[in-house]
Amino acid sequence: MKEKVVTLLSGGLDSSTLLAYLIDNGYEPYVITFEYGQIHEKEIISAVAIARHYGIKNHKIIKINMKDIAKSALLDRNTGIPMDRYVMNEIPVTYVPARNIVFLSIALSYAESENIENIAIGANAIDYSGYPDCREDFFKLFEEMANEGTKMGLSYGNIEIMRPFIHMSKKDIVLLGNSLHLPFEKTWSCYNGNEKPCMHCDSCILRSKGFKEANVTDPLV
Amino acid sequence: MKEKVVTLLSGGLDSSTLLAYLIDNGYEPYVITFEYGQIHEKEIISAVAIARHYGIKNHKIIKINMKDIAKSALLDRNTGIPMDRYVMNEIPVTYVPARNIVFLSIALSYAESENIENIAIGANAIDYSGYPDCREDFFKLFEEMANEGTKMGLSYGNIEIMRPFIHMSKKDIVLLGNSLHLPFEKTWSCYNGNEKPCMHCDSCILRSKGFKEANVTDPLV
Repeated sequence: MKEKVVTLLSGGLDSSTLLAYLIDNGYEPYVITFEYGQIHEKEIISAVAIARHYGIKNHKIIKINMKDIAKSALLDRNTGIPMDRYVMNEIPVTYVPARNIVFLSIALSYAESENIENIAIGANAIDYSGYPDCREDFFKLFEEMANEGTKMGLSYGNIEIMRPFIHMSKKDIVLLGNSLHLPFEKTWSCYNGNEKPCMHCDSCILRSKGFKEANVTDPLV
Repeated sequence: MKEKVVTLLSGGLDSSTLLAYLIDNGYEPYVITFEYGQIHEKEIISAVAIARHYGIKNHKIIKINMKDIAKSALLDRNTGIPMDRYVMNEIPVTYVPARNIVFLSIALSYAESENIENIAIGANAIDYSGYPDCREDFFKLFEEMANEGTKMGLSYGNIEIMRPFIHMSKKDIVLLGNSLHLPFEKTWSCYNGNEKPCMHCDSCILRSKGFKEANVTDPLV
């Protein structure tokens, strides 16, 4: 029987590659996508398309209106997405307070309910070093906390937050996705939800750099 | 200026007493109540009544349908609430996987958005020793994780999960609530949502024992 894993899928490049990677490594993914009040829905549409592409049986779309509580440019049209920044070494306004903590906690609840000890996330520390909740030190502590604060963790102590891309660059992820025949055209990275990627937000800039360095053509562009 | 605190209010005895205690200690509470798919709404009605009683300006009611992901007798009418158990030393079916982890994570997101470093919870380890996410060891690790995984935590390192009742019994909490003139009749503890408390579920049994030991009359009964 395949080992199960609860995996976070936003519909972006990283989490879609992660899904392909987990399937390629023989796991059975239980997928969670969050509709958390993003300023556009393209990510969710992409997540559904990717999950369908891989024939995922268990795909939960969890609604939680973080707009009610959290302040972020990703949740508020009026803040404005920063454009054409090429140096990204501070925490940007697109940071959503405690977002990965909330997402991993809900994934943990789902995992424990299904008796699954693996939770996977596509975080990669190199490109997103600005985000506190994408860093190795954070994941280690979340893991410890999860093993102490749940029935499953206290019983077995084996809850693992899988973060296989943590030391990978966007280039590495594009290369991996490409080798796994990930349908890149079904993914969505742009912070703005227009018909085509804007090519000027942080997310577009990083994606474009990754494809360029990997010498792969992005079908979305 | 009063120190702010994000506080979890379920509308039960413990969290209502906590709110009274925080106000009495000079804090300005920012209150969060979760509508997470409970089998009845009496708790939420109570939370609103208590918050109104104390003139709370900031009260967020956050909807998150944990029924979609988590299995628990508190979320599913068909599982059945255990009745007339007088020994409670294992984790009961009313345990909701990772519930406090999810609640504290969302509270953390709210707290960071409002730049508030205190989060308060009415957990008390003595009565609920069966719940992994009500224990001191868990709260310590959650605190560490929060200080590592948020911008606010990394900047100041002062995020505190306040748990002033952690070593208190139900009797202690009733005595404290009584001394603070908490309107007990506005709180709700029963796991069943009928007109009157059932007096047979774990929560009723613990509440009733607390009032009896404190020699206080429960106006709900």
